[in-house]
Amino acid sequence: MAAYIEPKVLKGFRDFLPDAEIVRRSLIENIENSCRSFGFLPIDTPAIEYAEILLGKSGGETEKQIFRFKDNGERDVALRFDLTVPFARFVALHRADLVFPFKRYHIGKAWRGENTQRGRYREFIQCDFDIIGSDTPSSDFEIILLIRAVFKNLGVDVNINVNHRGLFNRFLANIGQSEKSVEILRAVDKLSKVGEDKTRESLTELTGDANANKIIKFIGAKGDFKEILEQITELSGGACAESQRLTLLREYMRDACEDEDGEPFILNPSITRGLDYYTGVVFETFLKEMPDIGSVCSGGRYDNLAGLYSKEKDSISGVGTSVGLDRLLAALESLNKLPAANKCKTAVACIDGEKSGKYQALAQKIRKEGVPCEVFTDPCGEKNMVKQFVLAEKKGFQYVIIPSEDDSTVTLRDLSARQNIEMTLENLIKKIK
Amino acid sequence: MAAYIEPKVLKGFRDFLPDAEIVRRSLIENIENSCRSFGFLPIDTPAIEYAEILLGKSGGETEKQIFRFKDNGERDVALRFDLTVPFARFVALHRADLVFPFKRYHIGKAWRGENTQRGRYREFIQCDFDIIGSDTPSSDFEIILLIRAVFKNLGVDVNINVNHRGLFNRFLANIGQSEKSVEILRAVDKLSKVGEDKTRESLTELTGDANANKIIKFIGAKGDFKEILEQITELSGGACAESQRLTLLREYMRDACEDEDGEPFILNPSITRGLDYYTGVVFETFLKEMPDIGSVCSGGRYDNLAGLYSKEKDSISGVGTSVGLDRLLAALESLNKLPAANKCKTAVACIDGEKSGKYQALAQKIRKEGVPCEVFTDPCGEKNMVKQFVLAEKKGFQYVIIPSEDDSTVTLRDLSARQNIEMTLENLIKKIK
Repeated sequence: MAAYIEPKVLKGFRDFLPDAEIVRRSLIENIENSCRSFGFLPIDTPAIEYAEILLGKSGGETEKQIFRFKDNGERDVALRFDLTVPFARFVALHRADLVFPFKRYHIGKAWRGENTQRGRYREFIQCDFDIIGSDTPSSDFEIILLIRAVFKNLGVDVNINVNHRGLFNRFLANIGQSEKSVEILRAVDKLSKVGEDKTRESLTELTGDANANKIIKFIGAKGDFKEILEQITELSGGACAESQRLTLLREYMRDACEDEDGEPFILNPSITRGLDYYTGVVFETFLKEMPDIGSVCSGGRYDNLAGLYSKEKDSISGVGTSVGLDRLLAALESLNKLPAANKCKTAVACIDGEKSGKYQALAQKIRKEGVPCEVFTDPCGEKNMVKQFVLAEKKGFQYVIIPSEDDSTVTLRDLSARQNIEMTLENLIKKIK
Repeated sequence: MAAYIEPKVLKGFRDFLPDAEIVRRSLIENIENSCRSFGFLPIDTPAIEYAEILLGKSGGETEKQIFRFKDNGERDVALRFDLTVPFARFVALHRADLVFPFKRYHIGKAWRGENTQRGRYREFIQCDFDIIGSDTPSSDFEIILLIRAVFKNLGVDVNINVNHRGLFNRFLANIGQSEKSVEILRAVDKLSKVGEDKTRESLTELTGDANANKIIKFIGAKGDFKEILEQITELSGGACAESQRLTLLREYMRDACEDEDGEPFILNPSITRGLDYYTGVVFETFLKEMPDIGSVCSGGRYDNLAGLYSKEKDSISGVGTSVGLDRLLAALESLNKLPAANKCKTAVACIDGEKSGKYQALAQKIRKEGVPCEVFTDPCGEKNMVKQFVLAEKKGFQYVIIPSEDDSTVTLRDLSARQNIEMTLENLIKKIK
């Protein structure tokens, strides 16, 4: 048996102390409540799966990052690196037991052996919500509306940037550049990072001067939603199914949000979600007060989610998104908008160790009213009450309840006011509630 | 790229479909609320740690069961197999940042390569709560009271069996059998499984007839808390610190629970928690309606939690417990006492796809009142309303809202009554709330 082992956590992994964890849980609860209010249901999948399943569609980059090993039965297994791949496998496996359209959310840990120098973590919480089995504009819209609800409920203003990958492809076909779409998408995706000039340079190299100008015109279209839509529709060769879907989305937005001031939805033709597997509407979400940190919630529509794991011929189209919890938490902290937690701020003092049962009885009455109440466990004696105040202050509490000999009244110590007030239990509950 | 990969989960691992996951989350939320109401705070630790740290004190059995592997940096790492060892490491690492006594709960996944034939899972959720840094009877009591609150809030009656390992050791010393304590504890621990006769046999073999009788008398003491305490105190050589602590616990119980009918705390001298590392008070919790499934919440007091990971000389004593979530879930299901979930039971029908924005606007008004409301995304047309009813029934919903042309009224379809009723939005919210 070892005599001493140095306590340390692996690089890229984190402990969460109570102050940080309570906030993280509040944030998750908040997002979860938004999902539930829209009728989205939770699922869970194992942290460990067959490596073959998790790596199915991925290239070499994922393979390098994944935590992969042989289990005790010599199976080739790995830790999930996102919640999308397990969801695809889940849908293929349980297809017969799900009711479609299926609206699910999934909040859970995922692991990647990423380079931690980029400020990334090797263990992180993913927060995904999707509608699958419906290729309707209304399900595209519902995901966007739910994104909006999530951030509204958190009290932060966002711009949700929407685009349609299909319309962009149509535009490329219209200018005869379909064959280079992969390279063009890659260049366009860097626009916000490298700026318009550099993007134009790359595009000129790829497609020549005239085409580069057209592409810049497309991705840089200006105006409100309607005006931009008109421009990019024209550049794509006129009205089509994709432009009609965007028109419909705009109508939905107006109908669902007419009582709101401001327009959280922006048509942004430069949003392409890179080389991702999205095929239809795509979106990215930026905090109005901190756009520079990048998108905090991105997603879009994809075809044939479970295709790789399914022998059935009819594919399942879906639309969904993922909230970047770590990035969002950091942003909310800078903005001083972390969600409030129902944190305990009151303790019953422990004066005489023999009376702990009575102290607990008093606390029970307060807890019954929905107010958290701690009971201190280490007796201080009548003359050392200050010890209890110091402990309560260290814990960030606001009140200490000092029980009295008879049960009719108690003394409430307000730690910030440094005042003791005698009151009935009824008034005490009213005060600290 | 593979063309087809069979969708499957690893043996001993589980997917949770919405119905199961929603219940599991409600149960966790319920336990979490109980912990919070007592002022316990959440923490989290990484799923993966250095194997050396996780295996520190464990014997060969754990080593065989643990998921252990080399990460991409050739570090010897493993998945946590409980939340206790990571907590010990956590306390040693963050000792300076914690306020003692420290009351924490931790709910998270753990992994063991267990033999799944015993009905165990290789991935499971642990639910632990502890008070560390206080060796007071009142902290022993608070853990027991919190166990009681957890089950009370779940609406199930339990018997919490309490004992004191120290008093048992004193008894063994009193009959001159201290040296065989390990073997005796092992035999006593099997009492509930093998019965008194077999236990007596093993004890006779170990310690002779006379001692076996004394041990059986000790562990089989009958009566109420006070009567049993008197018997085992006498058998242990008279009043001592350990018997005084149990006396105090009984007083606390009376003081804190005097308004309750029945006595959930039982002094059970046969509870020893086997060869575990407990040193003081120990406890096991049984469902009154299903005692045979075994303890659903066990724990006790331990010395020097973080000793292995700490160079500091003063040890940290603690008391804590762990809820067996899987076993409890199964029991609650058989008892038909699964916690209620705020599950969505209402949907707005989708008649005309162009009006999805208006449907969402209507749903928003309902969600604002705290009532979850789904909006169906696939239009059925005026004449096919029954399609929406069928979908809602498949989802286990109770109501479908059929929007009308003007906004003043809507039609509510009650699916079980098979009735449509026209009403104002205000009345509708009242009805479905």
